[in-house]
Amino acid sequence: MILPQAVQRLINAFEQLPGIGPKTAARLTFYLLHTPQGFLDRFAEALLSLKRDTKECSICFNVSETDPCPICADDKRDKNIICVVEQPLDIISLEKTGHYQGVYHVLGGVINPLQNITPEEIRIKELLARVKNNPHLKEVILAMGSGMEGEATAMYIKKKLAEENKNRSQPFLITRMGQGLPVGADLEYADELTLQRALEGRRQY
Amino acid sequence: MILPQAVQRLINAFEQLPGIGPKTAARLTFYLLHTPQGFLDRFAEALLSLKRDTKECSICFNVSETDPCPICADDKRDKNIICVVEQPLDIISLEKTGHYQGVYHVLGGVINPLQNITPEEIRIKELLARVKNNPHLKEVILAMGSGMEGEATAMYIKKKLAEENKNRSQPFLITRMGQGLPVGADLEYADELTLQRALEGRRQY
Repeated sequence: MILPQAVQRLINAFEQLPGIGPKTAARLTFYLLHTPQGFLDRFAEALLSLKRDTKECSICFNVSETDPCPICADDKRDKNIICVVEQPLDIISLEKTGHYQGVYHVLGGVINPLQNITPEEIRIKELLARVKNNPHLKEVILAMGSGMEGEATAMYIKKKLAEENKNRSQPFLITRMGQGLPVGADLEYADELTLQRALEGRRQY
Repeated sequence: MILPQAVQRLINAFEQLPGIGPKTAARLTFYLLHTPQGFLDRFAEALLSLKRDTKECSICFNVSETDPCPICADDKRDKNIICVVEQPLDIISLEKTGHYQGVYHVLGGVINPLQNITPEEIRIKELLARVKNNPHLKEVILAMGSGMEGEATAMYIKKKLAEENKNRSQPFLITRMGQGLPVGADLEYADELTLQRALEGRRQY
């Protein structure tokens, strides 16, 4: 093969990333051949420090520079509302809304029997422990995706939380993210299930 | 902002790459948070060595470990046929066909007045010098893309080469990559210009 090893190695690395195929990997690599060495150095350093300079929050399992993470350490956040998400990326999306004042719990995935991800594989045990240790808990929001695996995970967790609720004089709420039309969407392009959920979730106006 | 600096830095680096927006950059970064450190180390090393371990072939300007590159140094390649391409990536695509036995010339871009890329900015001067120094030259294949910039570049180079040809008793051929239907394509989805070119380029069968 005519490719220099250094080029092939970087193509191989890019190809490992999700959503990047051989053509894109080659395109990115050849693009980088024409960037200043300073950018390559900074890129490499960012890769090397990614895990070195971050840790997992021992309370919510978010990615953070500190433990506990800034959200768990923030006195102004309501520790009695826990929003359960699949991954740290979801926290960023929710924080961008600026409309959530509770704390989070990162599952680190969803139950997926096809990929051998059982309930033990994700941080459900840790969530139940957190719930058990908080007698003042007001609400758990199940904010995993609305696909099949997300729904299955939400149902599984709901059952576990409902059991815990039976032991409480003051049970906490278990909620799920609202479903319906995305903002800006036209009805004609919405699928039937989304329209059905939008009808079920209609509000007085 | 709640993102750890190390995470933000890597997101910023990914965002610099062509075709990678903020969402994809974040997705790739969070994916890498869960890969083994060994992969991150190899990825970083590949970035650092990319330019360190490669050079430009002084004959054809291909990316290579050696100068001249393996193609220019290969005695079995016909030095009297030069295929002019935009970028090194195009050489890989052509080499994959296994049907080209000549050598290459990498322009390093195409003429693009909108992006201030004039003929002086790409390696046309070097191509003309190569052509001038080779009295046995048989053919120059203009293999830049068939978009507007590629066509303009091909036309510009053709004019320059034709001038050079006037001084020769044995002129070399100037050819352009064939245009027409891509293999496997249906006529109904082809645009009019492609169909026109396919008609013009029809062959006895």
